[in-house]
Amino acid sequence: MELLEKRILKDGKVFPGNILKVDSFLNHQIDVELLNEMGKEIKRLYDGTGVNKILTIEASGIGIACIVAQYFGCPVLFAKKSKTKNIASTVYKTQVESFTHGKTYDVIVSKDFIGEGDKVLIIDDFLAEGNALLGLIDLCNQAGAEVAGCAIAVEKAFQQGGKRVRDLGIRVESLARVESMSDDSLTFVK
Amino acid sequence: MELLEKRILKDGKVFPGNILKVDSFLNHQIDVELLNEMGKEIKRLYDGTGVNKILTIEASGIGIACIVAQYFGCPVLFAKKSKTKNIASTVYKTQVESFTHGKTYDVIVSKDFIGEGDKVLIIDDFLAEGNALLGLIDLCNQAGAEVAGCAIAVEKAFQQGGKRVRDLGIRVESLARVESMSDDSLTFVK
Repeated sequence: MELLEKRILKDGKVFPGNILKVDSFLNHQIDVELLNEMGKEIKRLYDGTGVNKILTIEASGIGIACIVAQYFGCPVLFAKKSKTKNIASTVYKTQVESFTHGKTYDVIVSKDFIGEGDKVLIIDDFLAEGNALLGLIDLCNQAGAEVAGCAIAVEKAFQQGGKRVRDLGIRVESLARVESMSDDSLTFVK
Repeated sequence: MELLEKRILKDGKVFPGNILKVDSFLNHQIDVELLNEMGKEIKRLYDGTGVNKILTIEASGIGIACIVAQYFGCPVLFAKKSKTKNIASTVYKTQVESFTHGKTYDVIVSKDFIGEGDKVLIIDDFLAEGNALLGLIDLCNQAGAEVAGCAIAVEKAFQQGGKRVRDLGIRVESLARVESMSDDSLTFVK
């Protein structure tokens, strides 16, 4: 998506350790107009697939998911990072290793809000090693819900996440796919 | 706001310890249509006040803030719960005690995205003891930004938060103000 690629080139910042900071418009400060354009594009890509629920993970997926959901006319469900050791029997639980924080989280969704018959579009801001997506897919599988696919703002295509998820036969659409990045250059997969 | 009050009566659940669960439509699963109606009402309340930034706190404020921001045509900034002990000099920091989790968090915003000349509308899903709002107000004060006011989905009017914030001379608009609640009844301030 050209609009997002241009914005990354203009306002994104590369830091050592393959960190791409887009916190001026995507995951700290949020440009809601840009999110709306992303929502239109994701709706175009997944039009006619029968999506009836959007699933994301706190925190930075939530804003994108809510704006995108307007184009699908469906609710958002966000998986929560659990703070307690005692997980209730009323939730599905999985584990997600965070690339950014070097830590593994228990991630939960309530059994009340996802189940058989649901067709789920999974949304997140970044796709790097794929751990968050694989966790969200696992939650859908536990619930017996169908995964229509994933829609990602920024995929680091030089990491393994995209391949890991696509190898499961799951559709992944990334609006910007970063091929390589360094201090003074950033290129996209064409 | 009648629509929200009716929804709370229909789908909200009261648990011991003054816990009101609205996770079927507000802060786990999110009804984006309802959020849009809340956005229109908040815009009506704060119309003409010159709001140019919406500030909230992760995680459950983000969805509301993004939908509401569409009516103001301005960006969202969400304060992050910091996971590190080393706080960079590039952020404003405050501390927020969580009523729900019984824990105190460091909460940060980047100095790049808030400052003098900003007129900030603070948004959150709940107002109980007011700790999150007071933390967000403190961040605005540190940044030299003006607080136009606060917009809250659900205020527990029987707790002290609303009074604490209003006593500072800051405008607080809550779309539903719960006067009292128990297992079998819930009333709103009229």
